[in-house]
Amino acid sequence: MDKATITFEPEGKSINVDVGTSVLDAAIEAGIPINSICGGEGTCGKCKILIKSDPKNFKFNDRGVLAQEEKDNGYYLACQTLVKGNLVVEVPEIARALDMDLQILEKTECVELEHFEPWCKSIELNLAPPTIDNNLSDWQRLYFALKKSETDTKITIPLELLRKLPQIIRDTDWKPVVTLINLGDRKEIIKIDKKSNENNYYGLAIDIGTTTIVVELVDLLDGRVIDTASEYNKQILRGEDILSRVIYCEENKKGLDKMNRLVIETINYLIDQLVRENKINRNEIIQTVVAGNTTMIHLLYKITPWYLRREPYIPATTYISPMKAKTLGIRCNPQGYIYTIPGRTSYVGSDITADIIATGLNKSNELSLLIDVGTNGEIVLGNKEFLVSCSCSAGPAFEGGEVEYGMNAASGAIEAVKLNKELDVTYSTINNTKPKGICGSGLIDLLAEMFNYGVINKAGRIQDLETSRIRVNDETKEFLVVESKATVMGKDITIGEVDIQNVLRTKAALYASCRLLMNILGYTFDDIVNIYIAGGFGNYINAEKAILLGLLPDVELNKFKFIGNGAVAGARHILLSQEKLEEAKTIVQSMTYIDLSTNNMFFNEFTAALFLPHTNIDLFPSVKDLKLQTEGF
Amino acid sequence: MDKATITFEPEGKSINVDVGTSVLDAAIEAGIPINSICGGEGTCGKCKILIKSDPKNFKFNDRGVLAQEEKDNGYYLACQTLVKGNLVVEVPEIARALDMDLQILEKTECVELEHFEPWCKSIELNLAPPTIDNNLSDWQRLYFALKKSETDTKITIPLELLRKLPQIIRDTDWKPVVTLINLGDRKEIIKIDKKSNENNYYGLAIDIGTTTIVVELVDLLDGRVIDTASEYNKQILRGEDILSRVIYCEENKKGLDKMNRLVIETINYLIDQLVRENKINRNEIIQTVVAGNTTMIHLLYKITPWYLRREPYIPATTYISPMKAKTLGIRCNPQGYIYTIPGRTSYVGSDITADIIATGLNKSNELSLLIDVGTNGEIVLGNKEFLVSCSCSAGPAFEGGEVEYGMNAASGAIEAVKLNKELDVTYSTINNTKPKGICGSGLIDLLAEMFNYGVINKAGRIQDLETSRIRVNDETKEFLVVESKATVMGKDITIGEVDIQNVLRTKAALYASCRLLMNILGYTFDDIVNIYIAGGFGNYINAEKAILLGLLPDVELNKFKFIGNGAVAGARHILLSQEKLEEAKTIVQSMTYIDLSTNNMFFNEFTAALFLPHTNIDLFPSVKDLKLQTEGF
Repeated sequence: MDKATITFEPEGKSINVDVGTSVLDAAIEAGIPINSICGGEGTCGKCKILIKSDPKNFKFNDRGVLAQEEKDNGYYLACQTLVKGNLVVEVPEIARALDMDLQILEKTECVELEHFEPWCKSIELNLAPPTIDNNLSDWQRLYFALKKSETDTKITIPLELLRKLPQIIRDTDWKPVVTLINLGDRKEIIKIDKKSNENNYYGLAIDIGTTTIVVELVDLLDGRVIDTASEYNKQILRGEDILSRVIYCEENKKGLDKMNRLVIETINYLIDQLVRENKINRNEIIQTVVAGNTTMIHLLYKITPWYLRREPYIPATTYISPMKAKTLGIRCNPQGYIYTIPGRTSYVGSDITADIIATGLNKSNELSLLIDVGTNGEIVLGNKEFLVSCSCSAGPAFEGGEVEYGMNAASGAIEAVKLNKELDVTYSTINNTKPKGICGSGLIDLLAEMFNYGVINKAGRIQDLETSRIRVNDETKEFLVVESKATVMGKDITIGEVDIQNVLRTKAALYASCRLLMNILGYTFDDIVNIYIAGGFGNYINAEKAILLGLLPDVELNKFKFIGNGAVAGARHILLSQEKLEEAKTIVQSMTYIDLSTNNMFFNEFTAALFLPHTNIDLFPSVKDLKLQTEGF
Repeated sequence: MDKATITFEPEGKSINVDVGTSVLDAAIEAGIPINSICGGEGTCGKCKILIKSDPKNFKFNDRGVLAQEEKDNGYYLACQTLVKGNLVVEVPEIARALDMDLQILEKTECVELEHFEPWCKSIELNLAPPTIDNNLSDWQRLYFALKKSETDTKITIPLELLRKLPQIIRDTDWKPVVTLINLGDRKEIIKIDKKSNENNYYGLAIDIGTTTIVVELVDLLDGRVIDTASEYNKQILRGEDILSRVIYCEENKKGLDKMNRLVIETINYLIDQLVRENKINRNEIIQTVVAGNTTMIHLLYKITPWYLRREPYIPATTYISPMKAKTLGIRCNPQGYIYTIPGRTSYVGSDITADIIATGLNKSNELSLLIDVGTNGEIVLGNKEFLVSCSCSAGPAFEGGEVEYGMNAASGAIEAVKLNKELDVTYSTINNTKPKGICGSGLIDLLAEMFNYGVINKAGRIQDLETSRIRVNDETKEFLVVESKATVMGKDITIGEVDIQNVLRTKAALYASCRLLMNILGYTFDDIVNIYIAGGFGNYINAEKAILLGLLPDVELNKFKFIGNGAVAGARHILLSQEKLEEAKTIVQSMTYIDLSTNNMFFNEFTAALFLPHTNIDLFPSVKDLKLQTEGF
C-alpha cells in the first residue's frame, strides 16, 4: 500500500501512514493530542485542523458540521480528511484535547481505613548452604524455610523467578529477603532480594474513568499516598462517551485492540510520571488495584464489549480473577498482580463498589445515599443491613458534553460564576487561565445565578430582559457569559436555550432516579443521614446552588459529603487491606439492582423534575422560602 | 557489524550471518543437520566440512584433531572455521547428525494402566438466554450451569477465553460444549465449542532424552496411542553430553536461551509431524505430560542449570507446577497445560519416576530392580514397601560416545553381530542400510562374540591370533569389523583396545552400582523377581550376551523385562490418570537416594567388574559353566 508522511504543527512531528488513512487516525498514532467526541464519525466538529500543504494531497468528506465562517478560515475536520499524499497539518489550540491539568480534591469525606493489613510481606531468611548430605533443591530449601512462618498456606514461585533462583539465592549468600503476596488460596513469591535497608514496596490504586484516569502511588509499608497523577483517558480520541467507544470497537478492524492499547498507554504514562517524579524504582511497584465502570473494565482486559450496550445489556463478567499486571502490559514489577474490584451489573460497575468501600456506608447503621455523577449516574441507598442500587443515563452535560461551550474540569474551565442585578458576570477558571469553556460546577453556578436573577424561568427559558447579554443566534436565545476578547479562542462563550435544556434533562434524570428509588423502598430524603456525592463533578460543586436547580434534594447542607474520586479511594483501601476485597465481594453479592428504565413511574418523575427546581415546589422548601433576586419567580 | 552469506551444500540453503560467526553456528541457525559432540570446542572432530568457495573468506583455527589424510582431502571443522566473507560450504554425509530413523520398540513389558481417568472432560450445557430480568453476566451464567455437575470445586476461565466469551457463547446459541481440565485445586475451562460430533481431545506424552525426544499422541477419549514420533534432541548440535550443554549455557551469551529454543524446536517439529500425519487439529491437543532427566527439565523450562553440575550438585527444583504449554512456546491448544513429572535429585530425574510408574514396581509385592541406561545409569530397587535409588556415571559407550565407530541406535548402525571360528563377521544394521558405525546392542554382541571366540581375554585385551582382522594401528591393537568398501564412509569400521576399555568401564560402573546398592541393603540378585531394563539401550539388547560380558547380573533370563522407553510410557499413564500423578509425587517423596560416589566400596566393586565377566567368576555361574569357543578361557 502507498505511504505518505504527515507532519503535525506546531510540534513538527511526522508520521508515515497508509494512503487512505484519516488525519485523525494519523494524529492519534503520532500521539498528537486532538479533540474528538464522536470518535471519528464527523458529527461533533471538534477535530478541527488547518492544512498547510499540500492541497492536492487530501480528500475531504464535508458533512456540513463546520460553520461557513470556519470553512472560510480554512478549517477541515481531521476525521473526514483522508490522506492522499504528504501533508503538513496544523492542529490549532481549540482542537487540542490532552493538555489536562486536573485538580485533585485534597480533602475528601471518605472514611479512614480502620485496619491496615497489606497483601504483601517480606521475610528475611537465613538458609543453610547445601552440601552433599543436605542436598535439597534450591526451591525446596527456600520453601521449607518459608513454611516455618507461613504454616497455613501453599507457597508458589513463578517460573520467571524459578529460572533465576539458583543465581539469585547464591548472590544473597543464602540470606534472601523474600516478598510474598497473598493470593487468597496461596501465597506467591514476587521478589527475592539481598538484605538491604532499601527494600521498598509500592502499590497503585487506579480509577479508570470514561474521561479521566487517576493513579495513586501508595507506600505499602506504611499505607501513605505518596503521589497522585491523572490524565484524560486516551480513549477519548476514539469517542468521548462510552457508547461511541463500544461502537468503535465493534465497527473497526482491531478496534478493541486499539481501544485497549489507549487505556494501557494512559496508565503507563501515569506510572512513568509517578516513577520519575518520585524517583522510585518501577520494580518496587508490586500490587495494583483497579476500579472502573463495567465497560472500562471490559476494555482494560480487552473483553468483547458489544453486548454491554445491547439489550438486555449483559456484561461478559463483573468479576475478574487477579492476574499478573504485565499480562495487560502494565509496566511495574513483572511478578506484580492486578486486582479488579468486582462490579454489580453493566451499569453499576466496580467504581461504585469502590465508592461504597470509601464511604463505609455498607458498615454503618446510618442510612446513606450515594450519588456518583458521570455520563451515567449511579445511585446507592443503604446501610449495613441492605444495599440497593440503580443507574440512570444522566447525559454528559456536567462533563462538557451536549453543551456548546461545555468542557471537562480542566485548565481554563469556568468553575464558578456570579451575577449581579446588572447581570454583570464574574467568574473564576481552573488554574486562573483565560477561559476556554464551562465545566460542571460552573454550569450549576451559572444556571442557578441565571435563575436567581430571572434570566431564565422555571422552564429554563431565557427571558426577554433589557440587556445586551441576551441575544438571538440562529433563532435560538442565548446568554453571553464571556466576551470573545477575553477567551482563549477569541470567540464568545455563551449558553443557549438548547444547552440549558440539556442540563435540565441531566439534572432531572439524576433527581428523578433518586426519588424513584426512595419511593420504591418507602423512604423520603428526610430519612437519609448522609448523602455522599462522588465523581469528578463532586469536587467543586456548590450544594446550595445545586439544590436551587433541583439537582440535589433539599436537605440540610451538612448531610452532603463530597468524596471526590471515591473510586480511587476505595481502590486504595483494598490495596491496603485484604479484608476490604472480601467486603467488596460481599457488597456485590448482596446489593440489589433495580432497573429504573423499565419502571413506569420513571417518566412521570423525570418530567416533573425538568423544571427549576421542580414542578412540585413543596419538595424544595428552602427554595420556596428563598427570596429570589427577581419578582418573576 | 559486517555480514556474510553462507550457502550450505547439497541443500543450497543460504543464511546471512555476522562476520566472525563460526560455520557450525551458521549451520545450526540455518537448520542444517550437522554432527557435534563437543558442542563447538574443536575436540570431537565430528563437524567436518568442505569449503567449496571462497578460500579467502574464512579463518581456520587448526587444533590438530583432524587426521593429516582428512586435511589433505580438504576437510575443516565447522566449529573452528570463522566466517570472514561469503562462503559455499558442503556438509558431507559423515558429518550429518539429524537423519534419525529411530526404531520404536513395539512391544514393551510395561504394566497396563488399570484405571483410565482423564484430566479433561466435556460438558454439554443448555443455558437460558439472558433477558432484562435474567441478566446474569455471561460468565456467571456459564459458571452456575457448570456448578450443577462440578459441585465440589472452583471453576476458572482464562482471560483469553473470557475475552471472547460473549461471542462464543452466543455463537453456540447458548448451548456450549465446555471442556474442563482438572488442576487439582480447581477446574479450568480450556475450550468452549459448538456441539458437534467432532469434538476430539488429544494429549501428548513426551520424553526428553539427552539424545532423543519421543512424543506420543494419545486420544484422551479412549486412551489409545494414535502415533509416536521421535527425533534427535536438537541440543545435540550444542554438545552431545549433558555436561557440555550445561557448559555451553554458562559460557555463551544467551546460551541458555539458545539451548531452550533447540529443545522446544524439536518438540514442535515432532508435534507438527504428528498433526500433519494424523490429520488432526493442533487446537485439539489440550494436555501434555513430560518426563526427562533433571538437566533436560531445567533446559526445557529455561532454568539456570549450572549448579546442577557443580558440587554439591543442587537442582533449582525437582518439582514444577503445571502451566500453560504455550508459556514454553509449545504449539498446541493455547489453553492447554503442561505437567512435568517430578524427579528425585539432580541425577535421578523425572524420567526415572516415569519408569517406575510404567513398571508398576512401586505397587507390587515383588522385589524389582530397574536399570535405566543412558549416559548416566540410574538404578532403582524396591517394591510397594520401599524404594531406593542411585545413579552412576556410566559413560556414553553404549550411545556411541567414547568408541571411535560408536553411534546411536539410528539408521546404518550395526545392531547385531555374529562371529564364527574363522572369525568371519556377519552383522545386521538398523534399516538394513550400509553400516556407518556400531550402536549399543551391536557393541554388546561384538564384544561378547570376540570374548567367546578368544579374540579378547578377560581383561579385554586383543589376543595375537592368526587373522588379518587383528592388526596394529598407531601402536594400538584393533579388530576389523567391516571393510571400507562395505561402509558408508568408505573407511574400515574397527574396534580398538581403547574402545573396548571404555565399554568395559561403562559396564563395570553399571554392574558395580547395582551390586553395591544390593549389598548396602543386604540383598542378592537371587532375591529379585523382576529386572526392568529401560532406555534406548534396552530396546535391542541380547540379555545372554550382556550376562556374558558381566553387564547384566547372571539370573534366569525370564527375570529380565525390557520396557524400552519407560519414561514416555509413564508419562502416558499420567496423561490418562490423575491418580498416577499423585503416585509420582508419592514415589519422589518416599524414595531414598543413595550417593554411591561418596561410598568407599564403590571403587573396589568397580575394579572387580572391569573384567569379563567379573573378577569373581562365581558371580556368573552360567558363564563359568559355558563352554566358550576357545580354549583360551
